[in-house]
Parts: sequence; structure tokens; C-alpha cells
Amino acid sequence: MVKTVLFNYIPSAEHRARLQAAAPDRHLVWAGSEEEALRAAPEAEVIMGNRFFLQALPRARRLRWMQSSSVGMDLILADPLARQRDFILTNARGVYDDELADHALALALGLVRGVGRATRSMAAGGWRREPLPALGELEALVYGFGSVGRAIAGRLLAFGCTVRAVRRRPEGPAADAARPVGVPCVLPGAAAPFLARSHLVFLALPLTPRTRNLFNRELLRRLPDGAFLINVARGGLVDEEALRAELPRLGGVGLDVFATEPLPAGHWLREAPNALLTPHTGRSPDAGRRRWAPLFEENLRRWTSGEPLLNVVDKELGY
Amino acid sequence: MVKTVLFNYIPSAEHRARLQAAAPDRHLVWAGSEEEALRAAPEAEVIMGNRFFLQALPRARRLRWMQSSSVGMDLILADPLARQRDFILTNARGVYDDELADHALALALGLVRGVGRATRSMAAGGWRREPLPALGELEALVYGFGSVGRAIAGRLLAFGCTVRAVRRRPEGPAADAARPVGVPCVLPGAAAPFLARSHLVFLALPLTPRTRNLFNRELLRRLPDGAFLINVARGGLVDEEALRAELPRLGGVGLDVFATEPLPAGHWLREAPNALLTPHTGRSPDAGRRRWAPLFEENLRRWTSGEPLLNVVDKELGY
Repeated sequence: MVKTVLFNYIPSAEHRARLQAAAPDRHLVWAGSEEEALRAAPEAEVIMGNRFFLQALPRARRLRWMQSSSVGMDLILADPLARQRDFILTNARGVYDDELADHALALALGLVRGVGRATRSMAAGGWRREPLPALGELEALVYGFGSVGRAIAGRLLAFGCTVRAVRRRPEGPAADAARPVGVPCVLPGAAAPFLARSHLVFLALPLTPRTRNLFNRELLRRLPDGAFLINVARGGLVDEEALRAELPRLGGVGLDVFATEPLPAGHWLREAPNALLTPHTGRSPDAGRRRWAPLFEENLRRWTSGEPLLNVVDKELGY
Repeated sequence: MVKTVLFNYIPSAEHRARLQAAAPDRHLVWAGSEEEALRAAPEAEVIMGNRFFLQALPRARRLRWMQSSSVGMDLILADPLARQRDFILTNARGVYDDELADHALALALGLVRGVGRATRSMAAGGWRREPLPALGELEALVYGFGSVGRAIAGRLLAFGCTVRAVRRRPEGPAADAARPVGVPCVLPGAAAPFLARSHLVFLALPLTPRTRNLFNRELLRRLPDGAFLINVARGGLVDEEALRAELPRLGGVGLDVFATEPLPAGHWLREAPNALLTPHTGRSPDAGRRRWAPLFEENLRRWTSGEPLLNVVDKELGY
């Protein structure tokens, strides 16, 4: 029987041709609707792309590998079936690094240079000048030093920032990666004194049972007055009620992600004067397919020829 | 007679002590008001700091050197007396480079990553996601390649941007400067084809009779649809009425400076949906004194000991 690869999206002709060339002996099936995905799932050896995946999973009894188009695996691994079934899970680590790091810097610079306040004031007819620091005068702490954290750190260094990273493993895959930067790493247990002196704190961590609500009241209280917190990772990393209590004494928060998305219409964050908010566009829609295509093609080639896959997820660790 | 140095500001004790150490034989006078400046002007061999300078100039008949706290000399050189009198003029070139470049990047990233639109939409209860590029996918053109232009270019390179600069002199002081970056320079007459393909255009030029309204209708029309124009230099570089006609087809403008400042309350720019506006805070208030102090101290030491001054302005060129 011909082995089937199910794609949960409709590809461009070029992408499809490259996928077929990468797996000439596979039967490629494209699902543009949940119904099509459910129909193809029982024959699928491989499923690529997030859309309809969790719906199709109960029927995908032959599944041996799933390639996600996301970096964060929290939504997939929240499904007990995804944790229990014995298939390989690979993610899109690295694919959105530049876009996410750009977005993190857009939020950080917007906060530090008072762009949000200025926008409101200028629209209201004002001209309120205020003293603002240069980024190079600030110390930054990046939580999580995978490829997104390193892309953020590399940009901060170009502004002359003092940058440190918080990392569970002082060494690991990132240490060998293509874009190392001169940033000292500290273990989470040793981060408190650095947190207490950092003007800019970036969250670039996966959301796992261990990191959920990591920024609870205790950690938020350690931030110095006037500090800025930027989150382009997952809303669940921050206890939003605790943030509500601490925000007035902070310089501000730049949030692209929220505990509940879309952010509810009446949510208090929408009215917070020192919150710069974007609607989960750190990885913006549509740009994704173009960015992930080369990874999907390369990993399918590796799968077909029996080579080790890129971006294999440790389901226990959650990333 | 003891020679007098007139300062148009009230210094910190530390700064004052260092200035006196740099010029032990000079009489230092501090003016905290226009009246004090006018009273001290007739004896002043040197005047340092912009405030009250133009008011005091008609009486400053012994003036041999003026140290400005600004980079742009357009306001001082607009005074015929300042152009005609035979005194050395030095500016604050280099002092605000990091702050200005940070601000330019804050505006550019805010535009490219849709932060202005998102801020308005999120405040209104919305959740409107849109495709956004990463900076590394864009080409940038920096007009003016003095120290501010180079600081902007260096930051853009860290984002992976393709960067070019437009420069009157292909070689010159900047080519020898401490922070060279790998950015090709083109002459203004050869810039048109690059302007027509640039997604991001930064203005980092002095305002002189030659550059006033440089971005007139003709140049603005060369910008491709969706391009972003960022100005942290001088409002007079852009013909605002011509901009009004072109803005709807552009991606947006990030403006920290305006033809008239403060920007009039009812000005059309305040209502433009794709304009990100800040009230001339690229060089923010109060931060200035701290940043310029080392330059003032070093130049006063040089003056007293007969060494060449830093940042001498060519009054003909205007910078």
C-alpha cells in the first residue's frame, strides 16, 4: 500500500512540486477543510500542518510523524491523545525567529521611547515631551535562550544593551547553534538578583506545566520600578491578575500574547495606559506558510530517506 | 582682564568642577535666565549652550567660539548675525547618535510591525491580525551618512536589512570614524533607482538651503507603494503638503520632527491613520545635559590649551 502524507493546508504549486520531489514514493493528500482531513486521517503515515490536526488525531491510527507549523507545542500537548500516542512530533523551531524578535524589539522600543503615550497625546492635539533613555543605557534579561531568545539578544547587543539570558541548561543545542552571541546565561534559580536590576525583561520560553504562570506575583514583585516586560511567547507564562496589581509601578508591558485569545473585548489590559498590545502578530498570519515551506520540504526528504528529522520535540519537556 | 566663558544653563556641581579644571584661568559664568545671559554677553570670549544664545549674540562683541548643544545648526545659522560674525561654531555631533538611532528604529519597527494600528484597534476592543514583514525582508535607504545615519544603519544590519546610504561625499570624515559599517554609499544624483525599490527610507540629514524640502513631490513620488518614511532629523527636509498627497499610497510615515513645532493642534498629520508621530523626542529633554557634558568639558580643555576643537561647523555647508 502506498504511504500517505496528509497536509492540513492548500499549497502553492511550487511548494507541492518540491514536496513531491522530496517524497516521490508517497501519496500526498491536501485537506482544505476539516471534513477532508477527517476522511484522509486513517491512511496517514504523516500529518503536516496544525489545522484540523487535533480533530483528525483520533482517527489517525497509522500516524508515525506529525510536523507542526507552530513553535509552541502547548496546545497540541494539552490533548491527552497527542501525549499518549507513539508518534514523532516535530515543530517549527527557528522558522519565525526573525519575525518574533523584530516584534519583541518593536514592543520594547515602543515602550522605552514612549511611542504609545506619544501616539495618544499627538492624536489628542498634545505636544508632551518627556525624558527617555537610550537602549544602550539599559540592562536586559531574556527568559529562554532558544533560537527566539538568541535572536532577541543579538538585536539588543546592536543597541549597546547589557544582555543576560535565563536558561535551564547552561549548555545545550543552542550553544552549538549558527548564531551564538556573547550573552552570559544564568540558571533560573540564580536569576533573582539580575531580575531585580533589569530594565527590560523578555519572555521567549515555551509554555509547559513548569513555566505556566512563571511570572506570578512573586517574580513580578522583583522587577524594579519602571521596568518593562515584553512577552511574545505565550500568555500563560504571566499571571495576568498578578500583573494587574504590579503594572502601575512598572514602566510598562508589551504583550503580543494573552492567557485568553482573542483578548476579551472588555479586558482590563485594553485600558491600561502603560500597556502596548498587539493581537498575536509576532508570528503574523499568512507570512507563516512561506516561512515554514523550506522546513517541511527538508523534513519530508529526511523522513523518506531515513535521515534524522529536524526539530524533534521532547513530549515530556514540552519543547 | 580675565577671560569669560558664559554657559546658558545651570550645571551640576560635578560638571562645573570638571569645566573649571579644564579651564583653570577662565571666569565661568552661568546664566539661568535671558536677563543673566544678556548681562554677561559683552564680556564672553566663549558661549556654551543654545539657550539665550541668539538673544545674547548682538551684545557678544568679544565672542570667539560658540559651543552648541544641538547637532542641527539650521536655527542658529538662520540668524544673519551668526553667519556674519567671525566666531568658531562647534556643534554636538555624535552626542545623541544612540538616542536618535534608537528612536528612528522605534518608529520604523512600530510602522513595519503595525504597532500603531494595533494600539488603536486593541483599545477599541478589536483583534485584527494582519500579515507583517520581518525587517530582514526589507531594503532600507538612509539619507545622510554622518554619525546618526551610521548608527541607524548599524542597527538595521543587526535585523538583517539590506542597507544603502545616500551621501554627498562618497568619502569623508565618516569613512574614518570609529563605527564603520558595511553599507554601500550612493551619491544623491544616483539615488533614484534605489529610492524606487526601498521599503524603508530614513532621513538623517542636516537642514541647509540645499536640503530644505528635499523630499518634495518629485522624490516622494519615487517611493514605492507601501514604503515607510522615517524622519528624526528636521521637519523642513520634507514638503508636508506634498507628503499629504502621497501618504495614502505609502505604508506610513514615522515623524519626530515637523516643519512647524510644536505641531499645530489641528494639523492634518495628527489624524492621518498611517502616521506614527512623536513630539521631537528623538533627542529627548533633560537627557541632553548629561550626554553633552563630556563634549563640553573636552572642548573647553582643548580651547584653553590651544588644541583643535572637536565638531567645528562649516558655516557655508551648514554642518
